[in-house]
Amino acid sequence: MPHVPERLLLGPGPSPVEPRVARAMSAPALSHLDPAMMSMLDAIRERLARVFRAGDGAFTFAVSGTGTSGMETAVANLVRPGDRAVVIVTGYFGDRLAQILARYGATVTRVEVEWGRACTPAELDAGLKAMPEPPAVVAMVHGETSTGVLNPVGDLCRLASGAGAMTIVDCVTSLGAHPVDVAGWGADAVYSCTQKGLGAPAGLAPMTFSQRAAEHASGVADRADYAERRPFYFDLRLLKDYWLNRKYHHTISAPLVYALDEALEIVLQEGLEERWNRHRENHLALVEALSQMGIDLLPPPAERLWSLNAVRIPDGVDDAETRKQLLDRFGIEIGAGLGPFAGKIWRIGLMGHGSSRDNVATLTAALGSLLSPQINSRRRVYQ
Amino acid sequence: MPHVPERLLLGPGPSPVEPRVARAMSAPALSHLDPAMMSMLDAIRERLARVFRAGDGAFTFAVSGTGTSGMETAVANLVRPGDRAVVIVTGYFGDRLAQILARYGATVTRVEVEWGRACTPAELDAGLKAMPEPPAVVAMVHGETSTGVLNPVGDLCRLASGAGAMTIVDCVTSLGAHPVDVAGWGADAVYSCTQKGLGAPAGLAPMTFSQRAAEHASGVADRADYAERRPFYFDLRLLKDYWLNRKYHHTISAPLVYALDEALEIVLQEGLEERWNRHRENHLALVEALSQMGIDLLPPPAERLWSLNAVRIPDGVDDAETRKQLLDRFGIEIGAGLGPFAGKIWRIGLMGHGSSRDNVATLTAALGSLLSPQINSRRRVYQ
Repeated sequence: MPHVPERLLLGPGPSPVEPRVARAMSAPALSHLDPAMMSMLDAIRERLARVFRAGDGAFTFAVSGTGTSGMETAVANLVRPGDRAVVIVTGYFGDRLAQILARYGATVTRVEVEWGRACTPAELDAGLKAMPEPPAVVAMVHGETSTGVLNPVGDLCRLASGAGAMTIVDCVTSLGAHPVDVAGWGADAVYSCTQKGLGAPAGLAPMTFSQRAAEHASGVADRADYAERRPFYFDLRLLKDYWLNRKYHHTISAPLVYALDEALEIVLQEGLEERWNRHRENHLALVEALSQMGIDLLPPPAERLWSLNAVRIPDGVDDAETRKQLLDRFGIEIGAGLGPFAGKIWRIGLMGHGSSRDNVATLTAALGSLLSPQINSRRRVYQ
Repeated sequence: MPHVPERLLLGPGPSPVEPRVARAMSAPALSHLDPAMMSMLDAIRERLARVFRAGDGAFTFAVSGTGTSGMETAVANLVRPGDRAVVIVTGYFGDRLAQILARYGATVTRVEVEWGRACTPAELDAGLKAMPEPPAVVAMVHGETSTGVLNPVGDLCRLASGAGAMTIVDCVTSLGAHPVDVAGWGADAVYSCTQKGLGAPAGLAPMTFSQRAAEHASGVADRADYAERRPFYFDLRLLKDYWLNRKYHHTISAPLVYALDEALEIVLQEGLEERWNRHRENHLALVEALSQMGIDLLPPPAERLWSLNAVRIPDGVDDAETRKQLLDRFGIEIGAGLGPFAGKIWRIGLMGHGSSRDNVATLTAALGSLLSPQINSRRRVYQ
């Protein structure tokens, strides 16, 4: 085992693993069909349904892969070739959704929103009205990890459902950190990850399918031909047969199951509202501390994620060098900008166990000590 | 965290986790793009290539999913719709390979072999000669987990390659337990799992693509249209970009990486030949002990896996009740039969850390104490 440096994980994820979660992973391994494993999967389904606020009849479980495997499972089971799909693209992950929908043969119409801004209901409405026929699916991202933007997915889902579409919602960066209310939104297929707001390591993708989405996916007769062309690993019928009927499909990873189980227990012990408030308060504390350093955020205040802060890199500051110094000298990881914001923003995550006042103080102190010489030297040059 | 019972995992997998591997998982989490993580992935590539005995120019890595995700990654990247494929079906996992190939649009010809027997080169040769055109792909399973059979994949690969086909080989139940020699076989896409012969928990699928397979998958121009239709999560080009070029694709699970890294170090410290011999010797010890109890194995001696023993359930013995008693009274898990062998065989795994003389003794003592009353009572009835 090589030396593993200790990092304070304040990037776009993974977030720091809860100590109780790390301990839970050391329990002895169980097989994927052990009665004790099946009881734990039942408990996870029940707890996840509460954390997602899933509706009656929903099928809630976890795919054995990362958040991206959840995205692909949602698409693979709801979309067939030739379906019209609208994708709201507010950043990198909206774009990924559009790419994956296209891989499954959907005809994709993108509602493009300026990176750094949320999609307004009016923008989606205009997009829907411009369609020659109503779309079968509308896909969107709740917390856009690339820009730190929170989309008003409740309003967007209501518009999409009103137009007769199924909805896919990405809650990768919001679950466990922001209010998620799948039943209230009327969303149909919602996925997340374990390594951000939930405080567990990566490796499982919690998901919920509404009753109508699960029925749609389970294959009405006219879809039978396509059903056989879904990826085997992501086939909802086979995943349901494992989670509900104990029929072998794949060997679920015992330590990841223990970690998710424990993480969900911690979330529910803290309380969903309390946990959301904690994320909100630490986000506001970071915004205030950064503002005192003259640093602003990319999205306007009303459109900001609490779990991920997209921070404008001050003029004259060396992006890569500052991140390297943070990592090497302070052991702190923050994220780089993506796409059009590479070199222009940092992405600072305060997620799950990582959302604490201590971490805000530690980060801003470290950042301050690295930035003031750079900013001062620039001021000397240009003043 | 609920109570997790301690099991002796002697089923078809997962196998017992090596204690050193369990400790390695408790190292602090690293992000998927941390320089220290990237060094560890480099080390894993190098070690896996030695364990697979991969050839020059091969691309060796791990998919972020279970062994089945490795199977799907092999198929998704080598096959395009309309390709002819031959699948050697000697049991449940050969059948799964055929199903997955069909999902990707291959025209599948099955070489059906009696369950419980290995495929002979003559059987494959006859299958290849009966094809109207040579197949693009021949897929096969090295260790068939459902029947405890070892297929002579070296000979089978040479025949397939001689016919101009790419080869896919499933080493899920053989890697780390049986001689695996990917370069020697000339195999093109080979996958395995972490939770059997390697002694780590489930969750990653070690894989290797030969240079020509990786080039084929990377997309010659006439495949460009199909390339966009592979699952995003299993797209070899994107996986290569992450493993080789540090370009974000998904958030690999840090504890699973630590576990695989440590497990491979243990394998190489023990030595491949020494490890194979240990598996062989403990298999022979089990066969001998069972034979003294009047219990035989399903496959003939020359076709037996060392890692997984398919054992005929003696007449008059209650399959489910005996497995339940083993689990409840002794904490020992063994596997049930699948398909035509449900109720007829048990599957006893001696894999990875689980392949020890102690475990042979523990299991046979427990089994003996459960079986002798059942067998004796039957003898009283029928004699």
